[in-house]
This record gives sequence, C-alpha cells and structure tokens, in this order.
Amino acid sequence: MTSRLDPATIDLLGVLAYGELTAFERLATDARLAPTISDKHALASMAAAEFDHYQRLYEHLRDEGVDPEQAMAPFVGPLDAFHDSTPPNDWLEGLIKAYVGDGLATDFYREVAVFVKDEPARALILDVLADTGQASFAVAKVTQATLADPKVAGRLALWGRRLVGEALIQAQRVAVERDALTELLVGGSMDLAGIGRLLTRLTDNHTARMKALGLQT
Amino acid sequence: MTSRLDPATIDLLGVLAYGELTAFERLATDARLAPTISDKHALASMAAAEFDHYQRLYEHLRDEGVDPEQAMAPFVGPLDAFHDSTPPNDWLEGLIKAYVGDGLATDFYREVAVFVKDEPARALILDVLADTGQASFAVAKVTQATLADPKVAGRLALWGRRLVGEALIQAQRVAVERDALTELLVGGSMDLAGIGRLLTRLTDNHTARMKALGLQT
Repeated sequence: MTSRLDPATIDLLGVLAYGELTAFERLATDARLAPTISDKHALASMAAAEFDHYQRLYEHLRDEGVDPEQAMAPFVGPLDAFHDSTPPNDWLEGLIKAYVGDGLATDFYREVAVFVKDEPARALILDVLADTGQASFAVAKVTQATLADPKVAGRLALWGRRLVGEALIQAQRVAVERDALTELLVGGSMDLAGIGRLLTRLTDNHTARMKALGLQT
Repeated sequence: MTSRLDPATIDLLGVLAYGELTAFERLATDARLAPTISDKHALASMAAAEFDHYQRLYEHLRDEGVDPEQAMAPFVGPLDAFHDSTPPNDWLEGLIKAYVGDGLATDFYREVAVFVKDEPARALILDVLADTGQASFAVAKVTQATLADPKVAGRLALWGRRLVGEALIQAQRVAVERDALTELLVGGSMDLAGIGRLLTRLTDNHTARMKALGLQT
C-alpha cells in the first residue's frame, strides 16, 4: 500500500489511534469502579468520546491509503505495557491516570504535531487531542476525596509519580524503535536545547496538573 | 417528578438503559482480551454501539420527565450481580456471554415490549434491541476456535449453561421486586399457559444460538 503521507506522520496517527483505543477500553473498564450511576455515566461518556476520536483517526489512515492496523501495530507493545504496569487500584487512581497520564501524552503529541507538514493530518491530530472532560471531572472528584480524607493524598501523589516513570520508560522504547517519529522531533527541527525546553514544558504542565488535584509532585 | 409514562414502561426503559450501560462496559473490557487489533476493533465498535443505545434511552427518559438514574437504580443490584458472578475467563467466554447472554435478554425484552402501550417508547425499545453485530462475530470466532481445538467445546457448553442459570436467578429477583414490570407481563395480558409458551420460545431460541456456535445445551 502506498500513501502520500510520510512515515513519521503515519507513525504519529498510528500511535494516537491505538492510544485512543486503549484509552477507551481503560475508561470504560474504570467506569465499573464508579461509586454512583452518575459517575459511571460521566466516565462512560468520556470513553465513548475517545472511541469517536479513534474512529476518526482509523478512517483518516484508511482514506489516505494506509492500513490502520499496520500503522498501530508498532505501538501495541509499548502502550499495552504501560497499561499493564499501571492498573489502578481504585476509582481515584483511575481518575488520576486518566487526567495525569492522558495530560502528559496529549502535551507531548501536541508538541510533535507542530512538525507535521500535512495540513489535514495536523488538523485532525489537534482536534482529537481536545480534552473530553476528564480534566475538570478528575479535579473535582479527587479534591473532594482528599478533603474528606487528607491521608489519601500521599498515596495518590506517589501514584502520580509512578505514572510518569512508567510513561517515560515506554516513551523511550518508542523513541529507540521508531526512527522516523524521533527524527521528526529531533532531526533538523529541534536541537538539544530545544529538547531541554520541551522537557521543561512537559514537566511544568505535569506539576500544574498535580497541583490542580491538590497533590505534590 | 411526574411523567405521562406508566411505572412498568419506566421500569422497562430503566432496566434496558442500565443493561446497555453494563453491556458497554463489559464489551469494552473484553476488548482488552482480544487476540488481535482487528478483534479489538470489532468488539470496541460493538461497545460504542451499545453506548449509543444507552444514551438514547437515557435521553428519552429525561425528555419524558423521568430521572434516568432513579429509573435505573432498582436494576443496578441484579445486573451487577449477574456480571460479577459470570466474569469470562478468556476471550471466547466473553464472546459467548455477549452472544448467548444478550440474546436471551433481548428475546425476553422483546416479548415484554409487545405490552408497552406508549408508541414512542415501544418503538425506541425495539430499535435499541437490534443486534449490533455480536451474533455473527461470536459465531464466526467460536466456530473457528472449536474447529481448531475440539476439546474447548465441552468447557464452552458448560459456560453457556451457567450463564442461563445465573441470568434466571437475577430475572427472578427482578420479578419479585418490581411488581409493575411483572404485572405488565403476567397481569391480564398473559395467563399461565401463555407464560409456559413464552418460556418455551426463550428456551428454543437459546438452544438455536448454542447450536449456531456448535455447542450442546
């Protein structure tokens, strides 16, 4: 199959598509832990929105002459490994994972999207990276829980740190294995100082999210 | 809150809505067990279709002046108990549960829907009971697996029997607790002989589904 899209853009669409598919599964699974029907409703609605994003990426790849499954395949290992190594123990950990984990991923993808030359692909990527409501929902629920029982804050702060650690391990694995994708970010367009600034931006945003949850980094 | 809908119709819409919400969660969770991306894609698509059904029932209840969460509440216990007592051990058991379990529930709901007097509610109910593709997908995958390894057929046949047993226990619980719903079926419109014929129809359809899977009842 031939496509007018370059390998890096196909990689980015592929990792995003599989990311949305697993986000969908995870949110829907976490909905089972929801303490009330209304929480379940909220989480299931977010999951359905992630599936809609997945479907749009899938169809875009297909319309561009790319086999979506082949595009997703290289990222199944790293993304499954991330989720397998970070199963939430309860409802709150699930919410934090949805907010903090997806937030970190989204920030990163948005930085990479700047370098995508193809206009329709870039527009679609920025569009599916839009928040589906996790942020405000997670902040409200976690704040409520830590106010009711300040002791849980320590455990949840540790959990946030662990999520970042596991995400970095898998991101590094992808960086080593997917030359085109790494090249997009590092090659030409960004020097070492630029990468340093990128990491600072990602860390700052992560700290801001943990602070919004009332948790230490 | 007052509604022009009678209590039995509200009960039926409520049990269907919560049934679709849990079906969504379950299919999405089972998608994690899928052996290939394409199987995962198929199951996630079905899950998204169930969520769409859920949303239509939810909105219909709300538009009719009924609190959807209150309408669903009486069925949370029985439906959660059914799913908690029948966690699939693998991908094939999940598929059979989706096909055989949902098939039985759908047949039953369709029989009850006949007695719903409100035309828009009845039309919506029959519409959301439409198959979202589970049937042919499950038959294809299970047949393929039992052909490859005939030994699994015995275990899966037992699993099908257990699903029916657990479903009947929870159905009985609902029948005892929800007078209006039971009355709709039994009161006036159906005599004992009619109920006997209904059970025969349900059993016959169940046997036909197990046969389509190549499994004994």
